[in-house]
Amino acid sequence: MKITNLFTKTTKHIDEEVKAVSHNYLTRAGFVHQEMSGVYTILPLGRRVLTRIENIIRKEMDSIGSQEVTMPVLHPKERWIKSGRSEMDVLFETKSRWSKSEYFLGPTHEEIVVPLVGRFLSSYKDLPISVYQIQTKFRDEKRAKSGIIRGREFVMKDMYSFHETPEELEEYYEKVKLSYLKIFDECGIKAKVTKASGGDFTKKYSHEFMALSSAGEDLIFTCLDCSYAENSEVSQLKENDSCPECQGKIFLKKAIEVGNIFDLNNKFSQDFNLFYTNEKGEKKMPVSGCYGIGTTRLIGAIVENNHDDKGIIWPATVAPFQVHLISLNQESEEIYQRLLDKNVEVLYDNRLDKTAGEKFNDADLIGIPLRVVVSSKNPGQVEIKKRNNEEVSLVEIEEFIENI
Amino acid sequence: MKITNLFTKTTKHIDEEVKAVSHNYLTRAGFVHQEMSGVYTILPLGRRVLTRIENIIRKEMDSIGSQEVTMPVLHPKERWIKSGRSEMDVLFETKSRWSKSEYFLGPTHEEIVVPLVGRFLSSYKDLPISVYQIQTKFRDEKRAKSGIIRGREFVMKDMYSFHETPEELEEYYEKVKLSYLKIFDECGIKAKVTKASGGDFTKKYSHEFMALSSAGEDLIFTCLDCSYAENSEVSQLKENDSCPECQGKIFLKKAIEVGNIFDLNNKFSQDFNLFYTNEKGEKKMPVSGCYGIGTTRLIGAIVENNHDDKGIIWPATVAPFQVHLISLNQESEEIYQRLLDKNVEVLYDNRLDKTAGEKFNDADLIGIPLRVVVSSKNPGQVEIKKRNNEEVSLVEIEEFIENI
Repeated sequence: MKITNLFTKTTKHIDEEVKAVSHNYLTRAGFVHQEMSGVYTILPLGRRVLTRIENIIRKEMDSIGSQEVTMPVLHPKERWIKSGRSEMDVLFETKSRWSKSEYFLGPTHEEIVVPLVGRFLSSYKDLPISVYQIQTKFRDEKRAKSGIIRGREFVMKDMYSFHETPEELEEYYEKVKLSYLKIFDECGIKAKVTKASGGDFTKKYSHEFMALSSAGEDLIFTCLDCSYAENSEVSQLKENDSCPECQGKIFLKKAIEVGNIFDLNNKFSQDFNLFYTNEKGEKKMPVSGCYGIGTTRLIGAIVENNHDDKGIIWPATVAPFQVHLISLNQESEEIYQRLLDKNVEVLYDNRLDKTAGEKFNDADLIGIPLRVVVSSKNPGQVEIKKRNNEEVSLVEIEEFIENI
Repeated sequence: MKITNLFTKTTKHIDEEVKAVSHNYLTRAGFVHQEMSGVYTILPLGRRVLTRIENIIRKEMDSIGSQEVTMPVLHPKERWIKSGRSEMDVLFETKSRWSKSEYFLGPTHEEIVVPLVGRFLSSYKDLPISVYQIQTKFRDEKRAKSGIIRGREFVMKDMYSFHETPEELEEYYEKVKLSYLKIFDECGIKAKVTKASGGDFTKKYSHEFMALSSAGEDLIFTCLDCSYAENSEVSQLKENDSCPECQGKIFLKKAIEVGNIFDLNNKFSQDFNLFYTNEKGEKKMPVSGCYGIGTTRLIGAIVENNHDDKGIIWPATVAPFQVHLISLNQESEEIYQRLLDKNVEVLYDNRLDKTAGEKFNDADLIGIPLRVVVSSKNPGQVEIKKRNNEEVSLVEIEEFIENI
């Protein structure tokens, strides 16, 4: 894409209200735009990142046998009354002016997915069932802060699984844990599996996936030598304790919760009368788990974990483009076209009214992995530089295009 | 995918309340599930169709230089007061219990996109700008009927363009018209470009894209010899008039509006003080257009236009799978695997507890383009049948796999 065709522009404006570095870089570079507190528009550059994140997640969810659906935003109020959660203070309410229908805007989808599965579940042969969606959620947060990391409206991948026995649930739960670590790793985040409160539905722990960051709103006790971590809300540990896993030293750190997994036991099966017939012909209740990843939040967490003082450093896996091509006093249309012909995703800075310095600053701020400069100073050659490395080298144009 | 892994099942249940054939087939085959009046879950088979539709649309929108974004569902109420549309009776309202914020759930996004473009627009060099999204919309319809064709919550591709002159807008408008016809054609719908009321913002006509269907809620005067059509709400024509284009005969027909395009003139530029500086340094207001396609509605319209008395007949371009592989008393795992290895999308009916008749009925209902039967009656061969054709033929397995 030519940068002149992009309707957004980089800005120098810094939002004083939001302190998170990710918010400032994402806003200044034109990835997201804050419409109001906790509500964002995802701009073209951000949309490309989000699509890549979604596809990484989809691939993993499909590979563990989960099936994609799209459940509605409007939830009948009765369902939440039935599950005993209608008093939660994050629920947005609305109603139809024509019918008597009253709705909540879904902050999570157990109240929809459990009756849905009930429509099709009859025998143990139908189990296990795993269903996921990538869908907009609504939570009326008291304070929506830290930019895109905590929004009132945000996108989440949420998955729900149903099993015959707690052991089978446990086995799937562990599989999801590994899948999640793979996803975060692929997105350039070193997430720590963190023991946390099980919530209201189980006596067991749940697990959160935490990315260390000064913009985080959670506090975890963690070992920096190994991956051990516990949420401070449930932990018996204190700072300077020795790690239960490796005897390293325990630190108290701020972190962003990028994912969580819960054992729901049969809480919602009970609420919505979810039954199946087992091999012996007996009526039984399935146990279930739920598993979430905040996809828009992940954009923020990736930037928190991948930046320097000049801007974002996108991992190639989620970068909006692979090459940032800069033309300096030199027509580069042909190189641009040849890269497109090779299916390389290129952002081409073809602006005539910007200095080399301005273009380099924009490239550092936007954070595409490879910067390629075409200049009249270096005929027949291009200057290449990785975003995560200071080294600059000159390469013959033909060689560059061949090897990319 | 193995049919035993699909958590949905076909049902014989017919919904008496909704008359549309598309609703009954889509529900019975397990493409969508009605949660309540006008609100649906898109099930795994439906999700696959919707993703294909979305990708057809994305490719076209990108090819006419539009940029994908995702704007929020929550709109600040003030914006709608500013545009004079806050009294529209399709608006759902909600509010935050913590702040004073009041919101509408977006039924369309002019109130968001125009100020957004205003943030980046300064010079005539920035124009034209075209922005689109594929996003969930909310409209509090008085009567939500005809299944997925008219929902209270539905998904739409909406696009907005901004230009210096009415002539440039006109030119883009015509380009979009051709793009839309291409999209509908690729989705297996013969849509008629229909003159309709321009609405409140322009004295000109707007255009609707109408698919003839008995489930439609619009009435159009149309020629069946050529593509000429006018919405009955604005037409001077009557039945049996002669067509203004080809002198054929004019009929009054029911139709589904699958898309519409509007000339907004400078209505919203005025509301939101949208300006740019022209070549002479003068402050000017851009003119704009908006362009919509209902993507979830399109699923319904495609089925209305592509079915017989046994079920759906998906066009290959939007089908959930390309091959429906049925195994009858014969292990077909190897054929299934070899098709997957060739990247063929296969729904594999591996059920042991169903009769041949039940499997054939399900295949007809679900409507995948090619049915392939493996049976012990025909060793070394498969029986193939297209969904839109009664002809059945026997082919050597190797030949079939080679040529697919």
